[in-house]
Amino acid sequence: MGHLKDLRVWAAIFLVIAIIVGIALVPELNKYANVVSPSPSENAFMYEKSMDILVMLLIGFGFLMVFVKKYGFSSVTATFLLVALSLPLYMLVRPYLWGISTDLSVTSISMLLFAEFAAASLLIAIGGPLGRINTHQYLLIGLLFTPLYALNEWILLSGAVIPVGAFLDTAGSITIHAFGAYFAFGMIIMLTTKREREIKVETSKSSNQFMLLGTAALWIFWPSFCSALTPLDKIPLVATNTVLALCGATLATYALSTLIRGKMEVSDIANASLAGGVAIGASVANVTPGWSMLIGIIAGAISVIGYTFIQPRLQKHTGGVDTCGVHNLHGMPGVFGGLVAMALTASPLWQLTGIVVTVALAVTMGIIVGFIVSRLGRKQTPYEDKDEFLSADEENLII
Amino acid sequence: MGHLKDLRVWAAIFLVIAIIVGIALVPELNKYANVVSPSPSENAFMYEKSMDILVMLLIGFGFLMVFVKKYGFSSVTATFLLVALSLPLYMLVRPYLWGISTDLSVTSISMLLFAEFAAASLLIAIGGPLGRINTHQYLLIGLLFTPLYALNEWILLSGAVIPVGAFLDTAGSITIHAFGAYFAFGMIIMLTTKREREIKVETSKSSNQFMLLGTAALWIFWPSFCSALTPLDKIPLVATNTVLALCGATLATYALSTLIRGKMEVSDIANASLAGGVAIGASVANVTPGWSMLIGIIAGAISVIGYTFIQPRLQKHTGGVDTCGVHNLHGMPGVFGGLVAMALTASPLWQLTGIVVTVALAVTMGIIVGFIVSRLGRKQTPYEDKDEFLSADEENLII
Amino acid sequence: MGHLKDLRVWAAIFLVIAIIVGIALVPELNKYANVVSPSPSENAFMYEKSMDILVMLLIGFGFLMVFVKKYGFSSVTATFLLVALSLPLYMLVRPYLWGISTDLSVTSISMLLFAEFAAASLLIAIGGPLGRINTHQYLLIGLLFTPLYALNEWILLSGAVIPVGAFLDTAGSITIHAFGAYFAFGMIIMLTTKREREIKVETSKSSNQFMLLGTAALWIFWPSFCSALTPLDKIPLVATNTVLALCGATLATYALSTLIRGKMEVSDIANASLAGGVAIGASVANVTPGWSMLIGIIAGAISVIGYTFIQPRLQKHTGGVDTCGVHNLHGMPGVFGGLVAMALTASPLWQLTGIVVTVALAVTMGIIVGFIVSRLGRKQTPYEDKDEFLSADEENLII
Repeated sequence: MGHLKDLRVWAAIFLVIAIIVGIALVPELNKYANVVSPSPSENAFMYEKSMDILVMLLIGFGFLMVFVKKYGFSSVTATFLLVALSLPLYMLVRPYLWGISTDLSVTSISMLLFAEFAAASLLIAIGGPLGRINTHQYLLIGLLFTPLYALNEWILLSGAVIPVGAFLDTAGSITIHAFGAYFAFGMIIMLTTKREREIKVETSKSSNQFMLLGTAALWIFWPSFCSALTPLDKIPLVATNTVLALCGATLATYALSTLIRGKMEVSDIANASLAGGVAIGASVANVTPGWSMLIGIIAGAISVIGYTFIQPRLQKHTGGVDTCGVHNLHGMPGVFGGLVAMALTASPLWQLTGIVVTVALAVTMGIIVGFIVSRLGRKQTPYEDKDEFLSADEENLII
Repeated sequence: MGHLKDLRVWAAIFLVIAIIVGIALVPELNKYANVVSPSPSENAFMYEKSMDILVMLLIGFGFLMVFVKKYGFSSVTATFLLVALSLPLYMLVRPYLWGISTDLSVTSISMLLFAEFAAASLLIAIGGPLGRINTHQYLLIGLLFTPLYALNEWILLSGAVIPVGAFLDTAGSITIHAFGAYFAFGMIIMLTTKREREIKVETSKSSNQFMLLGTAALWIFWPSFCSALTPLDKIPLVATNTVLALCGATLATYALSTLIRGKMEVSDIANASLAGGVAIGASVANVTPGWSMLIGIIAGAISVIGYTFIQPRLQKHTGGVDTCGVHNLHGMPGVFGGLVAMALTASPLWQLTGIVVTVALAVTMGIIVGFIVSRLGRKQTPYEDKDEFLSADEENLII
Repeated sequence: MGHLKDLRVWAAIFLVIAIIVGIALVPELNKYANVVSPSPSENAFMYEKSMDILVMLLIGFGFLMVFVKKYGFSSVTATFLLVALSLPLYMLVRPYLWGISTDLSVTSISMLLFAEFAAASLLIAIGGPLGRINTHQYLLIGLLFTPLYALNEWILLSGAVIPVGAFLDTAGSITIHAFGAYFAFGMIIMLTTKREREIKVETSKSSNQFMLLGTAALWIFWPSFCSALTPLDKIPLVATNTVLALCGATLATYALSTLIRGKMEVSDIANASLAGGVAIGASVANVTPGWSMLIGIIAGAISVIGYTFIQPRLQKHTGGVDTCGVHNLHGMPGVFGGLVAMALTASPLWQLTGIVVTVALAVTMGIIVGFIVSRLGRKQTPYEDKDEFLSADEENLII
């Protein structure tokens, strides 16, 4: 009964928070009324990108996490809630960091796009502790993560710390992927109990097929993620490069998974195939299609090696269970992508600085946030919906 | 055997109807050849919206209705068929109501968009009697509903009855959502047998996950639904407002579902999260993002209260089973959205008139259409595919 | 053990091939630097089409093939791998056929679109032998098919053989659909063992629902497939025509499936509903919406007749099992669409020549490629994932 009372108290708290965020956003409109806004056709094009990225968030990340057999309702619900919390929260927070000069305003779709990037990074981050925390704990992570993400983005890109243009990360290999993944890395150290370390996460044919649907949604729209903020004339190059990086990673995943394991593992296919998109993010506007494919092949290989060799070792050393293997998909390929860009930028030292700062900040903040969240208690039945969903354990729901 | 003979006769009838509609549309081309058409880039942008809305129709509404465990094939097939019937039918009917001045022509995508709105309203309407009628009964509803929908749209928006611009309903809170939902309200009074009132509609883990996929498709592309016909320069505002209304409803749904029920109900999450999109439709181009979020929060709350408290009471009083709870998702939030717009329009009385006319017309016509359809007989096995699909009850199909 | 060793050797071979393709594409950039590129807004619009078509490839074709109950992982994985192989391969091969005058370059999205068409035709082709070959055999088919597809496209459209404009096939009824389907026709003669002829391909409720999701993805974005390369001002007509052709086929499929079988068969609904899109491809820019609906009705009828009457007879005569029935969905409706265009073109004989050449070339090459692939051995357990996927046969994966 204490459990149910807790659920209710937290539900009330987050309802109040939602109302406060809504009220705080009421007058925001006028504040940026004199911002220069893009042309209608640029807005129209960014608009379509913002829809594509919503597909990646809700169907892509959402269903990629449905692979946990008895935890599908929670995975999708957490995805919905974190998107619903982080989008308005980012819109509220960012102007305080970037100041009046920000291009965020309701006369430009870029406000929505930047907020979606924040949501993507958050969804990456919760892939680490997925299944071991309750809904209100996901929401608390979202509440704390979003401003920290905005802070790191401000350090890397606003010009206040690193000179504008010195850090090359067109599509967020570091800003979005590595930050989310290393934040997860920090959190899971605090959010894995001894008992949870022994539990095997169960999957099923159906849950794995939903996972593959999530993969498809991410693969397909990754070019929109990469080209969301590029000028119109760069779009053919950026789109082609992104697609070829994904092609490379997909082929490498099949090859490496088969070479290492003897047969393919469906979770390798579902995840590592996307590593090319993660890695190409930093340099996507600065290389040729052939290079993109080669970067994708290497990223796919790194990711499979992560799933097969590195993750078990890391888990033994840190004690943290990385449910979705976000370190293999977003962490290492992201850092690899950021390092590739060192060869392409005029300021490799600033590039390295940006990478190191991001990883260090993310791990540290992840540990702190993980500690705070762990103080709210542990999930009763890890990797199962039934703690928080009615009728999820009824017999007629089994199939 | 009489059952199978009936199925064949109706199949032949609708094949003939399809051929007649096709023939009737052959010469339509020239009729509107001198209509002023939008610029290529406006058409291009509307084109993308029309694709997004097709996702909402076939994957969104289609899979949202797959939650009925043993009725998935029928739900998706009915969706396909109703879209396939109502799109050409609306294109055929509308010019007779609106006259030569209509902007419907094959030189503008707006013809397709208006037809898609009609299809959306129809899919909302059949969510009421879902699972208790046969395929040809769905098609008969589609045949009767589409002209009635066009009639109501003409009353509200053509200027023939209510002055042009006096009724504020940018994205169809009333025109599309409330009309469909109250049409369903009327129909189900006629389309629920005593036996059906006692049957519990069964769901399963897999059917509920497909439902959540439908929810995601609707959530994601709702901004395209709302901005389909807005001028290019309003798109950033309309898109941001729609997204924030959905964010508000999603957070409120989690909170209210947990507060009222103790734990979440997955069908609340799947449905009420969308109520923000329904409610913001009327005023989406006239409020700020913060207001949109607050409207969304209230709409989500109304919808959960509908599912938990109002639906059981209504069912007891009217005897009608609302399978998908469309009254909770599209009915009350739609009317709420229409009423909010009263505060924003210069002609609140016309606004109220439009709402009252729509609800009254929809309920009345729904009762009449429901009565006609009920005369064709009842479905043998409610909520199951096997009456109309081969091998749906074979053993190898269970899982 | 020999089996596992083989899998590893082929994985290594295709890893090397991927690397070679990547290296070969590195310098391609400069080669076409002086090509005239489309305007940014044309590119932007083509870009959105290229995303829509990726949805058709990975979710559409991919999940349409998930209907084989125990073969879902393989179907989706093969889809991913064939897309990943054929896109860069086509980009590499085409310039050697079309010469420097090609408009393929990274300054235009058309390069990506043409490559996606090649991938679509390839995915159609493997629908024939689906479930009876191993992953590396799919990849070998992709390696051989892609240049042959480009060769046939060059014969029909480049002007080198048939005069430019003499062959009317706006959206590939012949070039893409018929070529893929008759290539499959040739292959399956070589790729069906006696034992496989007796096996019933098993489906399940869940696998069929994923199939319907694939259908929805294809239906929805078919207008983008048809209008990908049409001028902006033709888009409203092409989009409306495509949608009405699909509406016609969907209604005819319901009617014919019910009339012939007594009840509907879900695989008819999932496949034949799309035949309208296949058939309208050739003439989509040259007819009115009414004609499009009528063409769709006929195509849907042809397709259902194919599934019910023609396929069993063909299978008896040729001994080849067409797992997805691609001959019924893409073969006959494609040829029908090509023939319809004979009435619309100024050069009906060239039109007929193009159709005959395509079918003859496809069948012949399909037989040869099928023979080569059959020399690599047969799949151990037809229509099951477990030969090549770890843990696909574990008990916890059953549901």
